[in-house]
Amino acid sequence: MTSSDLLAPTTTQTVPRLIALDWGTSSLRAYLLGDEGTVVDDITVPWGIMATPDGDFARALESVTGTWTNRWPGLPMIAAGMIGSAQGWQEIPYLGCPTGLDDLVAAVRAQPAVPGTSLKIVPGVALDGDIPDVMRGEETQVVGALALDSGLSQRSLLIMPGTHSKWVAVRDGRIVTFTTYLTGELFAVLSQHSILGRPAMAVAKESKPLVPAWTAFDRGVRTVRGNPGRPLSSLLFSTRTLVLSGRLTASESLDYLSGLLIGEELRSALSQTADGFACALIGESGLCQRYRRALDLFGVDHAQIIAGASPAGLWRIALQL
Amino acid sequence: MTSSDLLAPTTTQTVPRLIALDWGTSSLRAYLLGDEGTVVDDITVPWGIMATPDGDFARALESVTGTWTNRWPGLPMIAAGMIGSAQGWQEIPYLGCPTGLDDLVAAVRAQPAVPGTSLKIVPGVALDGDIPDVMRGEETQVVGALALDSGLSQRSLLIMPGTHSKWVAVRDGRIVTFTTYLTGELFAVLSQHSILGRPAMAVAKESKPLVPAWTAFDRGVRTVRGNPGRPLSSLLFSTRTLVLSGRLTASESLDYLSGLLIGEELRSALSQTADGFACALIGESGLCQRYRRALDLFGVDHAQIIAGASPAGLWRIALQL
Repeated sequence: MTSSDLLAPTTTQTVPRLIALDWGTSSLRAYLLGDEGTVVDDITVPWGIMATPDGDFARALESVTGTWTNRWPGLPMIAAGMIGSAQGWQEIPYLGCPTGLDDLVAAVRAQPAVPGTSLKIVPGVALDGDIPDVMRGEETQVVGALALDSGLSQRSLLIMPGTHSKWVAVRDGRIVTFTTYLTGELFAVLSQHSILGRPAMAVAKESKPLVPAWTAFDRGVRTVRGNPGRPLSSLLFSTRTLVLSGRLTASESLDYLSGLLIGEELRSALSQTADGFACALIGESGLCQRYRRALDLFGVDHAQIIAGASPAGLWRIALQL
Repeated sequence: MTSSDLLAPTTTQTVPRLIALDWGTSSLRAYLLGDEGTVVDDITVPWGIMATPDGDFARALESVTGTWTNRWPGLPMIAAGMIGSAQGWQEIPYLGCPTGLDDLVAAVRAQPAVPGTSLKIVPGVALDGDIPDVMRGEETQVVGALALDSGLSQRSLLIMPGTHSKWVAVRDGRIVTFTTYLTGELFAVLSQHSILGRPAMAVAKESKPLVPAWTAFDRGVRTVRGNPGRPLSSLLFSTRTLVLSGRLTASESLDYLSGLLIGEELRSALSQTADGFACALIGESGLCQRYRRALDLFGVDHAQIIAGASPAGLWRIALQL
């Protein structure tokens, strides 16, 4: 115990109850959760399952959570994400759709972890058919979002922007279907490796803008919205021609490209969605702001941004174990 | 003169009339053309305008065509492609649409080249508006295709697959509009730099297939055709999930991806095209075969492949100068 612990009044002292892990492909986020699932402490390391030192998941877990487990031994531990995939620690079979909290809880499996404790791992969810789709980790964020805002349970669309964006349709508290869009990865490969990224790369060393060029971003979104018959692959080239013709600066060009890509995702996803749904964005804050802005331009002005969905979902699932 | 020249009967000896250059971003193709525009000789070097040694266009031209000009001094020379862009030898302003042979001929400019000779450079064509588009070199291939097959003049769709595919609509011998699709570049960046290319990369060293996996390619095309409401960015992820679920092998995966990308291009371009048009494919032979196969799956079975459009177009333009 440190002196600051001694000084803190014991009545407001939060007692840790759970160690919750969001263990994905590229990073490991660990949360120390107290009563009601409040986040007492958290740590993020770049030890996703593809970058765990020596592929030793047990040692990585011990290293990340050691400070907590030394002080509060025997805390239960739960994880969601790619750690439950074939490339992870233990493969937990996917659940089909529709699926909800009870199904996820029933399918959780235990992986012996640090001596004396097992790590509970949440399964992912899959869609079968000609165009199969999968998620691992997002199902837990859905559970968390519904716990944080009960208004989302009956009928909602949960949007999770990222490298592989997920759009999840929820009915009566269950995931009924979902779609993955490669938007984030398309942006990364096009801006880093294609002709579209060259002008921005040339000026990037001089000045890296701190805020997005919103006018250029909006223009990209509006270009997609205003040209319903033209698919993304025919609109992308305008990122180059607008710069060549002096109507877009090099430093604005990537925000225009971002607007095109996010606009295409919204155009498609919203066209398959009936009205009257609640709508929430879950993910990295800056990216959620971009999506909310684009949603506004598509006439969807009621999207709220939900933070902390992952630890909230892990808490909710652990409560039922 | 070599002995073989002496042995050849002089009556069938082709006298060179023109040096014709297709000088693009990544390569320089030079043709020695005889009467009627027949190709007497040709040479291709990787000296596109971005890779010309020392950026010295005059020396590159002399080096490539020296054997011909030493033997037949004073041959006229003409070029089309990016050599006429702002990054090329001399910027030739774009023409607007509609445009035809006469307009192109009138806008050709001369660039002093090797001593005593100038190089005539053909302009590109541009579309203005919110989604600007440009071409340089393809306009000359259009002229060549119409010269090689007069059936294309009245009303046709010319498809030029490549890094930046062009679809050109022709009416009464003139280019009325065109659209660029980033299909080839999307395939390159996704297969080389995204998660979709990883399985194929892992097996590529073991066995590089000599022929495309046509079944996988067809499946990609059909997936796009059979899912009209789903855009490319939501179908791309199936390249990964089909491999993960064992329904596509790693070595087939890139041909499936190719089918998705070409299918998306066709789905979009054909949806904007009325019936009753002649249709031709112009470009690299293997790629044209892919497109013809995909067009068949979309019910367009009358697409012919046209070879030699570039020298034919340069010949046709030079005739009018």
